[in-house]
Amino acid sequence: MVCNVLIREKPVLSDPVLIEGLPGIGFVANISALHLIQELGARLFAEVRSSSFQDFAVTGKGGETRFPVNELYYHKGRGDSERDLVVLYGNTQALTTPGQYELCGRVLDVAEDLGCHYIVTLGGLRVDRKVDVPGLYCAASDVETLDELLGRGAKVIKGQIFGVAGLLVGLGRLRGMRGFCLLGETPGFYPDAKAARVVLDMVCEMLSLRVDMGRLDVAAEATRSVLESFGLGRAEVGETKRRESRHWLI
Amino acid sequence: MVCNVLIREKPVLSDPVLIEGLPGIGFVANISALHLIQELGARLFAEVRSSSFQDFAVTGKGGETRFPVNELYYHKGRGDSERDLVVLYGNTQALTTPGQYELCGRVLDVAEDLGCHYIVTLGGLRVDRKVDVPGLYCAASDVETLDELLGRGAKVIKGQIFGVAGLLVGLGRLRGMRGFCLLGETPGFYPDAKAARVVLDMVCEMLSLRVDMGRLDVAAEATRSVLESFGLGRAEVGETKRRESRHWLI
Amino acid sequence: MVCNVLIREKPVLSDPVLIEGLPGIGFVANISALHLIQELGARLFAEVRSSSFQDFAVTGKGGETRFPVNELYYHKGRGDSERDLVVLYGNTQALTTPGQYELCGRVLDVAEDLGCHYIVTLGGLRVDRKVDVPGLYCAASDVETLDELLGRGAKVIKGQIFGVAGLLVGLGRLRGMRGFCLLGETPGFYPDAKAARVVLDMVCEMLSLRVDMGRLDVAAEATRSVLESFGLGRAEVGETKRRESRHWLI
Amino acid sequence: MVCNVLIREKPVLSDPVLIEGLPGIGFVANISALHLIQELGARLFAEVRSSSFQDFAVTGKGGETRFPVNELYYHKGRGDSERDLVVLYGNTQALTTPGQYELCGRVLDVAEDLGCHYIVTLGGLRVDRKVDVPGLYCAASDVETLDELLGRGAKVIKGQIFGVAGLLVGLGRLRGMRGFCLLGETPGFYPDAKAARVVLDMVCEMLSLRVDMGRLDVAAEATRSVLESFGLGRAEVGETKRRESRHWLI
Repeated sequence: MVCNVLIREKPVLSDPVLIEGLPGIGFVANISALHLIQELGARLFAEVRSSSFQDFAVTGKGGETRFPVNELYYHKGRGDSERDLVVLYGNTQALTTPGQYELCGRVLDVAEDLGCHYIVTLGGLRVDRKVDVPGLYCAASDVETLDELLGRGAKVIKGQIFGVAGLLVGLGRLRGMRGFCLLGETPGFYPDAKAARVVLDMVCEMLSLRVDMGRLDVAAEATRSVLESFGLGRAEVGETKRRESRHWLI
Repeated sequence: MVCNVLIREKPVLSDPVLIEGLPGIGFVANISALHLIQELGARLFAEVRSSSFQDFAVTGKGGETRFPVNELYYHKGRGDSERDLVVLYGNTQALTTPGQYELCGRVLDVAEDLGCHYIVTLGGLRVDRKVDVPGLYCAASDVETLDELLGRGAKVIKGQIFGVAGLLVGLGRLRGMRGFCLLGETPGFYPDAKAARVVLDMVCEMLSLRVDMGRLDVAAEATRSVLESFGLGRAEVGETKRRESRHWLI
Repeated sequence: MVCNVLIREKPVLSDPVLIEGLPGIGFVANISALHLIQELGARLFAEVRSSSFQDFAVTGKGGETRFPVNELYYHKGRGDSERDLVVLYGNTQALTTPGQYELCGRVLDVAEDLGCHYIVTLGGLRVDRKVDVPGLYCAASDVETLDELLGRGAKVIKGQIFGVAGLLVGLGRLRGMRGFCLLGETPGFYPDAKAARVVLDMVCEMLSLRVDMGRLDVAAEATRSVLESFGLGRAEVGETKRRESRHWLI
Repeated sequence: MVCNVLIREKPVLSDPVLIEGLPGIGFVANISALHLIQELGARLFAEVRSSSFQDFAVTGKGGETRFPVNELYYHKGRGDSERDLVVLYGNTQALTTPGQYELCGRVLDVAEDLGCHYIVTLGGLRVDRKVDVPGLYCAASDVETLDELLGRGAKVIKGQIFGVAGLLVGLGRLRGMRGFCLLGETPGFYPDAKAARVVLDMVCEMLSLRVDMGRLDVAAEATRSVLESFGLGRAEVGETKRRESRHWLI
């Protein structure tokens, strides 16, 4: 086993959008994806395991075992305007650069096979200060999308987009997929519902999704709980940052 | 060669249980597995080599050479109640995360081929204090097994199960295998016969195995000797812990 | 995906020379290659992606996304004396040693397929002092080439040639390709147009290329800009050095 | 390319002995192998390249390029008593544990194909003191060989045999090959001709080889020169030790 996708059900979708929501800075993407899944009643249809995930199990409060995994959910758009979605959710990214490439490749294989031509990746942009109203930053594969995002109040990301959020857009472009990346400002040290809110609001606007944001705190709390079962507290999130630094080698 | 299994004999077993006993914290699993093998007269039937094991040889007291290896033993249950067993024993785990995944995958291939549907993994739970009566902690793949373990006095593991002990249960579940993990409290700095005793007592209860515990110290002493030939003293066991920390990256 | 080459156009070339120009010390090769591409109007014909490149995206000033990539350009020699060229340009080398070997192997596959028998690699030779007139250092696959380089004023490299610059020549020789490596002295902490100038002058002499050097500063400035979008300032170039040190293991 | 063997000539040998002589502690094996090759006039017949070797080139004094490589030489035994030999020589071992396993696997493939059933590996045993008369330490695959070595004055190695010297014997045993390992005491900080002498004397005794030791210093000096061209001085040999320590993980 290197990176395997176990397809439980093959949904029939119409031009779906792939939304990425794996753990990262401030767990912004993770909270957003979980909230989308819960509010839209998205259905689990595939499970991804990789030998570049951690080699441990975690136990839940009831003694049940959980494992490092990525999952794919689908949602069929309601009414005329809402887009079909494929949501990538999980409790980890791959631990190595080749593992990240392979993970993204497999996810894109599935998405492509379902007719996906558009990718949205989410994340947090770490700022070293208290954030009252998180700013929203974007990058896009094309000028039209970028203009639309800027017109709705996002600013341009200056710098790098780490991990799966950057890689999916880059590798997707090789397959002719378009898309954008949205990052919300966050101190980054805890699952940040406030940053997730600004990111998710924009995603919903762009994709004409109707999602109630009232229970976003519940998703943040659930994310914190998964996080803790994975032994990840404040300090370990700092570790995440250190690992990323290793990538600055050129 | 990446990870190869050399099958010397293919035993015919009835619904065997796979018991994992590789080196880890306090060498609890290692002592337990060795003791089971010796007391039950379990037979070696397969040898596992991996390019993720160490690249060195060690020499025994007589000048003979030993190598990093995992071995599989079988035991045919005596009488009506005793289960058939496959015991995974060895002097190392794989040194890398992908190596651990591959090792577990190969071991599960063999176990599945022999008709195994149930996995028991063992280990130590490090505590930073002197342990008089080691507490016993558990996780399980299903509620019935968990209830049985709790009913017999084990407590729920809160946290993570590192290495092969966690991974085998997780990867086994993908193949429809059930099972449980047992960890005994241990300071973790030496082969801990006392922790192995509480773990092994519970394993024997759960699997209706009749095993004399009188010579458990002999297995602990043999484990210490292998350990020393591998250059592993007190300090290096601390290394093991450091390596595990590297996995906390998410 | 591990290391893939996407061929957009297959040029017909006559005994072309492969010129390597990936990022490295002082970005000497990178500036030189970019300048050659721009001045000669070389055409992009292939794109190389590797899972050993960084797993991130960077955003340009306009919000557009860029990714770690290597590119191959070709130039058909003008007149009778100018050689056909294949130029390897990019914003990164591979991050791991096996990744470097694989990248070079794929690039040599393409070059061989186009009829290439000659490789020129470029780079900087770090010196711990201010450089007024950068010295030029060389190594070659054969005595004739070496004598020609020495006759034109280059000195022999004493030491090691790191990364793709060394590896391409070494792996090319296994395929019967000849070639040389040129390093210009540089403090190495910034894109060094002065060092690129002495290197490129010699390349043009050796290959009878007519290239105006007037806009070399533009190529250096463009290199600095790519560099900054990759988050690489003065400190990170020091990182590059540290990584290289890791290779001194024997 | 991962690990490739380029066979230039396939010698016909009778039950040859494989002698390992790659760089390691005190360069004892490296000096010994080079001396054997030179004194016996052994012929180069195969070249091994691996993507786990270093990704750089080195330049010789004349500006010619050299690369990380392993080489295989053969010697046909003279007279009735002298054994046919296959000598593994090179300027590096693989940099990673999986690379070491693969390298040894490929070398054993070649040796097996030539009818080899016996492996001799050499090395230095680091001691933290001045060595007047280097002690000789051994390990063996079987009791008869061990007894013969002990009878000739070697002592039993207590501890570990790192790298290719240990791995070749271990992996060879899986193919039914027998053999022994000889380590000479050395401070380990420079190419140690004195340690190579005691090791090589014993090898010659065991294999009935007639080799003049008069020019052993020449081989040591040549080894030092290769070593320096690889940038390896006193400090870096210490690095080698540090790398080995990384392997002490479990």
